[in-house]
Amino acid sequence: MTRRPLPKSIATVSLSGTLPEKLEAAAAAGFDGVEIFENDLLHFDGSPAEVRRMAADLGLQILLYQPLRDFEAMPGEVFARNMARAERKFDVMEQLGAEMVLVCSNVQDVAIDDPARAAADLRCMAEAAARRGLRVGYEALAWGRHTRRWQQAWDIVQRADHPALGLVLDSFHTLSLGDSLQGLDAVPADKIFFVQLADAPRLSMDVLSWSRHYRNFPGQGDLPVTDFARAVLQAGYTGPLSLEVFNDDFRAAPARLMAQDGLRSLIWLESEAGGTPLPEPPVLGGVDFIEFAVDYVAGRELAQRLESLGFAHAGRHRSKAVDLYRQGGINLILNAEQDSAAAEHFQLHGPSVCAIGLKVDDAHRAMARARALLCKEWREQVGPDERVIPALRSPDGMLFHLIDDRDADRSIYESDFLLETPAEAVHHGAGLSAIDHLAQALPANRLDSFVLFYRSVFAMQPEAVHEIADPYGLVKSRAMVSPGENVRIPLNVSESGCTATGRFVAAYAGSGVHHIAFRSERIEPTLEAIDRSRAAMLHVPDNYYDDVAARLALDDVLLGRLQRLGVLYDRDAHGEFLHAYTEPFHERFFFELVQRAGYLGYGAANAAVRMAAQAQLRHG
Amino acid sequence: MTRRPLPKSIATVSLSGTLPEKLEAAAAAGFDGVEIFENDLLHFDGSPAEVRRMAADLGLQILLYQPLRDFEAMPGEVFARNMARAERKFDVMEQLGAEMVLVCSNVQDVAIDDPARAAADLRCMAEAAARRGLRVGYEALAWGRHTRRWQQAWDIVQRADHPALGLVLDSFHTLSLGDSLQGLDAVPADKIFFVQLADAPRLSMDVLSWSRHYRNFPGQGDLPVTDFARAVLQAGYTGPLSLEVFNDDFRAAPARLMAQDGLRSLIWLESEAGGTPLPEPPVLGGVDFIEFAVDYVAGRELAQRLESLGFAHAGRHRSKAVDLYRQGGINLILNAEQDSAAAEHFQLHGPSVCAIGLKVDDAHRAMARARALLCKEWREQVGPDERVIPALRSPDGMLFHLIDDRDADRSIYESDFLLETPAEAVHHGAGLSAIDHLAQALPANRLDSFVLFYRSVFAMQPEAVHEIADPYGLVKSRAMVSPGENVRIPLNVSESGCTATGRFVAAYAGSGVHHIAFRSERIEPTLEAIDRSRAAMLHVPDNYYDDVAARLALDDVLLGRLQRLGVLYDRDAHGEFLHAYTEPFHERFFFELVQRAGYLGYGAANAAVRMAAQAQLRHG
Repeated sequence: MTRRPLPKSIATVSLSGTLPEKLEAAAAAGFDGVEIFENDLLHFDGSPAEVRRMAADLGLQILLYQPLRDFEAMPGEVFARNMARAERKFDVMEQLGAEMVLVCSNVQDVAIDDPARAAADLRCMAEAAARRGLRVGYEALAWGRHTRRWQQAWDIVQRADHPALGLVLDSFHTLSLGDSLQGLDAVPADKIFFVQLADAPRLSMDVLSWSRHYRNFPGQGDLPVTDFARAVLQAGYTGPLSLEVFNDDFRAAPARLMAQDGLRSLIWLESEAGGTPLPEPPVLGGVDFIEFAVDYVAGRELAQRLESLGFAHAGRHRSKAVDLYRQGGINLILNAEQDSAAAEHFQLHGPSVCAIGLKVDDAHRAMARARALLCKEWREQVGPDERVIPALRSPDGMLFHLIDDRDADRSIYESDFLLETPAEAVHHGAGLSAIDHLAQALPANRLDSFVLFYRSVFAMQPEAVHEIADPYGLVKSRAMVSPGENVRIPLNVSESGCTATGRFVAAYAGSGVHHIAFRSERIEPTLEAIDRSRAAMLHVPDNYYDDVAARLALDDVLLGRLQRLGVLYDRDAHGEFLHAYTEPFHERFFFELVQRAGYLGYGAANAAVRMAAQAQLRHG
Repeated sequence: MTRRPLPKSIATVSLSGTLPEKLEAAAAAGFDGVEIFENDLLHFDGSPAEVRRMAADLGLQILLYQPLRDFEAMPGEVFARNMARAERKFDVMEQLGAEMVLVCSNVQDVAIDDPARAAADLRCMAEAAARRGLRVGYEALAWGRHTRRWQQAWDIVQRADHPALGLVLDSFHTLSLGDSLQGLDAVPADKIFFVQLADAPRLSMDVLSWSRHYRNFPGQGDLPVTDFARAVLQAGYTGPLSLEVFNDDFRAAPARLMAQDGLRSLIWLESEAGGTPLPEPPVLGGVDFIEFAVDYVAGRELAQRLESLGFAHAGRHRSKAVDLYRQGGINLILNAEQDSAAAEHFQLHGPSVCAIGLKVDDAHRAMARARALLCKEWREQVGPDERVIPALRSPDGMLFHLIDDRDADRSIYESDFLLETPAEAVHHGAGLSAIDHLAQALPANRLDSFVLFYRSVFAMQPEAVHEIADPYGLVKSRAMVSPGENVRIPLNVSESGCTATGRFVAAYAGSGVHHIAFRSERIEPTLEAIDRSRAAMLHVPDNYYDDVAARLALDDVLLGRLQRLGVLYDRDAHGEFLHAYTEPFHERFFFELVQRAGYLGYGAANAAVRMAAQAQLRHG
């Protein structure tokens, strides 16, 4: 059964800016409606009727006004005052054109622990609302004084038994307590008035602080929001899916970017939860090529760097100023073509990775999914006989080309390049055979955006967050890995503008690939084969070897070999990892050579050594 | 009894940068020694002997090498490997000239829960250390597998009973568990080998995350570090007081600033804990004056703003281009003098508060205390017959003049200004009578520095942190209040460069006073008396009044009066707060008029309304 998509909504508190800016951002992203967070209205210098007109002009429904706090089960004398308060809010809602108000469970110490009393109070409120054609949704806050779980809220709604009173469900409040929606199928679908959605990283802190500062969009965190949404859909709910996120970073980020992420997360979630399906994600077959934007000078310099690492010039593009370098199964493209996406990229960012080719099982299905997830398609100019390769723009402007060789009689290198050697000939060079991983540096508040992009569009899974001490600040790293483990993209962020990562992001005017790791089956012969001085291999301090020997009990023979070649060493339960870095190229990116034998990580234990060595290069 | 000061030390992990930068910063601040954090050595591209020479050249002792982890009470086969690991570390220590190593309690799951076994292992290690003239300090980590409290570590040290094995105490590990040093007086002083100190804000999260990211210097957090240090001194400990702080902000902040804060915190702590005493803090008598750095044009404009608020020109400085404006008990100085601290301030920051006059009971004692706490003294040029006023520079360069009228026959205004009215005449103007508070905007990573400055130098106490939602990010506010509650300085920080506070900090090239609140006994007549349009009072949205009426059950008469005059309202258990803001002056600072009747806060409930209105002014 293919369901119709449910309406998509976002609470204004989830976005930065003034109320008009929030509404414009929600509309621009394509939301159907919004929840108006009360403070956003209070701080707006215009009447509720003006807000109503503005939303209508933007094509947005005002689906909910929220929250009304600390209403039910208060000591006797407070009830009348609270009803007067509710009536004033109803006045505002009528002007606003909001038909529903959210009442969240009472958090006051003086609130009375009596569901019957709570039900009676809410029944009065619902009756008053109904007289105006309004409705009341009751939600259990995870830190409510007595009502914390949705089952308790449902018990109270049942006791109140009023058609204008129903249940509001919120994924954060339920999942943060380790609760689930088990039993929701016993609730009549029309008593579920509204559903709010948020994810969050797993953090061990009090639930109130966690809720107020760290929520994020579904797919960005660690909570089982998909299970939650599935239970909601199975219960027959047909109302809006609405995001309510409190997040310090989101509050400071551009509202339009955040709104687009939000809608992407809901579209993805609905599909994952068994609602309107998206085209299946592509089966990734690895990184086919990496394309660098260069000009003539940077291109010559980069070519020399690559040659010193064992790469060979393999061909020239049929119609463009584009060169192909190859080694083992690695294809690197140096693009100096004027009037291209690469040239635009070069102008903004200098010599940098402007595109990545990903092998996929079905490029057209992959592109259809990406489009449904709000990604922009990119069409490059192609010459005669050249292959049309579907491409999409990632959130930082880098292109992903989707390479699908199913129906092609020859590879894109044969169709687009004048190859100097036969297509099937492999240049073994120094023994580098594949792209092991590539890392992106991102502004600190963009990590969640990219996690969602890779997860939703390519079905890559986020790994745990690592924290690495750069001499000038902490770097957080979270790897995205494809199901087949053949595409690995660690995402790195740094709050500090002083770390290598932070400086890179600042210098790069955005984000981008700053680290490319090539795999060798045996790193020692590879390092013997390359010109280590021209390749500018990063020097590793002797103190590192003293420690690694003591820490991992390496024998002196192995230690001597590692030290002579400047190789770093790590191991986990699955195997060994030997690796070596180059110095940065124009402070834009650096290369890593890795020998991975079963090992699952990225040498995070040694990343701090690399960062310190890079800092020493900069600071002398 | 006045004790000799104990040696002061800092662990290199507490500071940002490369190892040489860390050592230089510690030496520049005036520390006696350092703990070398192992990773700092591992990442340094030079031998331990070079580090030893560098430290010696800088006059720093290397007091400790740390940490050696997961040593004691491991399963059988691991012991020999761990002893070999220890021997390699002893080699390093000999080259480094570090006589003591810190062993922290084992965190491995496989560690054996047997104090006798732990003692036997540590005894072996101590014996090996003693053969080289080295010593071993054993510390209980708060998250150790079996040993978490100092009493357990002491039990193990006693069982081991080796002269080269002793106890390391750490305030964070003890206080984070809610433990204390009760019973320490039974430990022989010479078995306390080393004492590490850190404070931390009270956060409800797992102790490991809390420890790794949020520690700060004593006096900056909420832990009873003073009680801890007092117990250490009373136990007869005479070794170094050493800071060990893991903090994300500190890692990214300039090492020299942080090192100075660190030494200031130890000097203060030692005095508070009954060690070498500092001169008593001043008894503050309120803010005597605020001085603005202006040029001719900005001075004219500011004068008009002040006149519109009911201030009158009261006099001209005897020898400088400096004017005095007065109302009630408020003195405002507009300084346009060339070749002055004010002119320097103006050049850096534009029209801004460059100095504050504080009434103190004894200016010379206050200055002696400030100097002992590493504050720089400032000497202004004075003309004949003018008063010499001691002044010190705060961490952002603003001056604090210390006004002490005990021995003066006339006020500084009489001695330094040609007054237009008799000194005793009070200009009542619009009824503003006193400076209620002034707020400073700081870069996000400098909040702790200023908390420590105000706490240590002026004995002001930090209040709880408030979080306020600006439309473009979160603002944190923490007020410092003098014991007599007559000097109140809220400190505001914002991670986001997009909030009014964040933009202010960016625009201001540092930090500074951005908010000055004047008190009126009755704000309504004051607002009637001033020229509200020329004073540029900030407009408050009507929606605010709808909400405050519903929320606080205000009657319609009061509500109408508040709304007509644009007055905001709050109350707490102690009384009412009525207040109104002006628009900003040159995006540098704004004024607030307040009526405070018993109320203890700063209208934080309304600050978001103000921020939204200011944002609307900027964004139109």
